[in-house]
Amino acid sequence: MAQNVYDEAEFFSGYSQLPRSIHGLDGAAEWPTLRELVPSVAGRRVVDLGCGFGWFCRWAADEGAAEVLGVDLSANMLERARRDTAQPQVRYERHDLEQLALAPASFDLAYSSLTFHYLVDLAGVFRTVRTALVPGSAFVFSVEHPIFMAPSPAAFVDGPEAAPVWPLDRYLDEGPRVTDWLAPGVVKQHRTIGTYVDLLRDAGFVLDRLVEWGPSDAQVAATPEWRVEQERPPFLLVAAHLPA
Amino acid sequence: MAQNVYDEAEFFSGYSQLPRSIHGLDGAAEWPTLRELVPSVAGRRVVDLGCGFGWFCRWAADEGAAEVLGVDLSANMLERARRDTAQPQVRYERHDLEQLALAPASFDLAYSSLTFHYLVDLAGVFRTVRTALVPGSAFVFSVEHPIFMAPSPAAFVDGPEAAPVWPLDRYLDEGPRVTDWLAPGVVKQHRTIGTYVDLLRDAGFVLDRLVEWGPSDAQVAATPEWRVEQERPPFLLVAAHLPA
Repeated sequence: MAQNVYDEAEFFSGYSQLPRSIHGLDGAAEWPTLRELVPSVAGRRVVDLGCGFGWFCRWAADEGAAEVLGVDLSANMLERARRDTAQPQVRYERHDLEQLALAPASFDLAYSSLTFHYLVDLAGVFRTVRTALVPGSAFVFSVEHPIFMAPSPAAFVDGPEAAPVWPLDRYLDEGPRVTDWLAPGVVKQHRTIGTYVDLLRDAGFVLDRLVEWGPSDAQVAATPEWRVEQERPPFLLVAAHLPA
Repeated sequence: MAQNVYDEAEFFSGYSQLPRSIHGLDGAAEWPTLRELVPSVAGRRVVDLGCGFGWFCRWAADEGAAEVLGVDLSANMLERARRDTAQPQVRYERHDLEQLALAPASFDLAYSSLTFHYLVDLAGVFRTVRTALVPGSAFVFSVEHPIFMAPSPAAFVDGPEAAPVWPLDRYLDEGPRVTDWLAPGVVKQHRTIGTYVDLLRDAGFVLDRLVEWGPSDAQVAATPEWRVEQERPPFLLVAAHLPA
């Protein structure tokens, strides 16, 4: 079973105080870009892998999705998701994504936000997604950018000219990274961009977009402390589809 | 016209002493991996964009290519390429790649090694390649990896624990990078991986592979000073194709 850090009190408490936990999609700086990668959900059946508090599920329902399934491992998060969701077309299920089974050809769009970098058997999850989608469907997800995750410690340092630089190492050394984000001992899985591309292709997907996301100049003007995030991308946004 | 640094005496002299200039493909550490991305050339018409001394052109002819066109901007390099090439199916032409015109549907494979990162109008070059290829053709190329090219200065420094780290900054700041590699003032064009993917898609290509290349453990065992190259990839290898 995957590490269930979101059900540990210290982590959950910290996570619950993040802007994206309080303000939802509007509190996630990458959402405007990620949203552009999501095709119209009106009338579609949508599955959200790692749905957390259900913000995307509710957004999809508001956009006219016919059916939305949110899946998460965290009982804490699903409890709040169910409490906050009134739309009858949204349902939530608790599963370890690495053990998930979905009915074949039962969805038109698969979505996941900042979840896959916790999973060890991503190849298996991608195969599950492929089988659950009908031909022509879209698969849109975000992960921590491999540049962000690779080094240990992952923190800016002063560079040769005293400006902050990201001290990259171990980029090609794929495997676990243990960090102390919100709680000690959070385990993530580092993969290169090339490996994400291979996993998609091996599962039968065609890659459409890779967006190496950093804040826009307008976002930096509004939140100056984000400027350093333009030095290296914190998130990787991916759009792919199944051939029709 | 693109910068023609390969025809400057200091640069050409330095470049001519690199292992890949002396030993050809066998002197290029990434070649075994790049070769795996190249489909069979037997009976095919091949164009090499930035052919340099013609090593790949001669390899393709030896592998049974029906016709090979090598294009380069450097008169110095083409002079040696012609001198070293005996196979009648290989021909060389001198062009600025950004001004290149190729007959429509005249090739079955387009190849380029470590050239595209010098070009400003890569979108135009990709359109030229798309038009010159028949449907179903492969497009395989290498460039300096964006992680390698982004920072200025691009050199390892001691990290927080005295081990070498790559001081990454400016990754999302696309545009020229001026380096002093072999000669002062060499201008390269930094693009993110996401931009390479977008340019391919916009030109009509389907992406198959992105290999973020670093030396293998066996190569490091043979050449220990390469070990640091495993901390961040020096090259990006790309394989794409036109829909049939």
